[in-house]
Amino acid sequence: MTDHLPRGTDSDLAEHRLSSREVYRGNLLHVLEDRVRLPDGAEAGREWVVHPGAVMVIPVLPNGDIVLERQYRYPLERDFLEFPAGKIDGGEDPLATGQRELLEETGYQGGRWRFLVTLHPVISYSNEHIEVFLAEDVISSGERSLDEGEFLDVFTMPPAQALQLLERGLITDMKTVVGLLWLERMGMTRAR
Amino acid sequence: MTDHLPRGTDSDLAEHRLSSREVYRGNLLHVLEDRVRLPDGAEAGREWVVHPGAVMVIPVLPNGDIVLERQYRYPLERDFLEFPAGKIDGGEDPLATGQRELLEETGYQGGRWRFLVTLHPVISYSNEHIEVFLAEDVISSGERSLDEGEFLDVFTMPPAQALQLLERGLITDMKTVVGLLWLERMGMTRAR
Repeated sequence: MTDHLPRGTDSDLAEHRLSSREVYRGNLLHVLEDRVRLPDGAEAGREWVVHPGAVMVIPVLPNGDIVLERQYRYPLERDFLEFPAGKIDGGEDPLATGQRELLEETGYQGGRWRFLVTLHPVISYSNEHIEVFLAEDVISSGERSLDEGEFLDVFTMPPAQALQLLERGLITDMKTVVGLLWLERMGMTRAR
Repeated sequence: MTDHLPRGTDSDLAEHRLSSREVYRGNLLHVLEDRVRLPDGAEAGREWVVHPGAVMVIPVLPNGDIVLERQYRYPLERDFLEFPAGKIDGGEDPLATGQRELLEETGYQGGRWRFLVTLHPVISYSNEHIEVFLAEDVISSGERSLDEGEFLDVFTMPPAQALQLLERGLITDMKTVVGLLWLERMGMTRAR
């Protein structure tokens, strides 16, 4: 099956849209309530969040340390340690999103950028996708320009230390966990 | 900072709730629109999805193969390969959720269960958490009992093959990506 993973609506598991209704449009969230035809012919409802997609950047300094942010996340009522990330502005190239967000949020820029992987964080109720980039040899411009109402601290640390935080349950943001494990499998978390 | 990661609302980044209003309650999704006081004293809105939490199981057979599901995910209009997972019923013990979901969705049961990690997949707009369990030496009962309207295929494959699918961009469900990378770092994805 490796080379024949069913994709798209030709699957025998596919659900076909019968109708779609916007039930909430906030400033951030946009929720749809659709009716679908199930594979057995029955009808069902599907509630989901429309998302423009996001980019996460794994910024690595010339000495091998990584750049992380500490940010308060209201739904969970606490701070999280995270790699820089942000939403894709309409039609923006994901690489441009990554470079813009990294500079705005942390003041780091430049270096060598490489696409790593696409992730889908919430397949049961959102169409969000996260494009992950590795940015090596970034340098600090000393300037950042946070959006109004955006508050976050910026840290650098050896990736081996971040892995220890992950193992101790102190890094649980799922995109950041993937980023750290990806660095580890690329051999970039060993002490220098 | 390793041992002093700020947690909870004593952080200098904390946002304090001023009001909370339910703006959508569907069968699946429950959306709140809150007003908060920001660290600088200004007010802002926060829109977020209330979630009961979920459990993901990494089921491993006595021969080292893993159990995966193929399921159609409507928000993304295609099938995904995933580890078995399901929502925590009110007050249910996460281990019980995992054992129940694994049996219902795949027919596998028994074996040795171990908690691995807690993940937060959507910290910007949901309070969802995913408790991850490793279930080694599971055996097939030959019976599964899907919920009405639930359709999914069950596969077993060597974890090394699943890692190849991940590297080729054919496994992108973020919780499943974490599960596979975790298996890899535990040395459980090597061919036997």
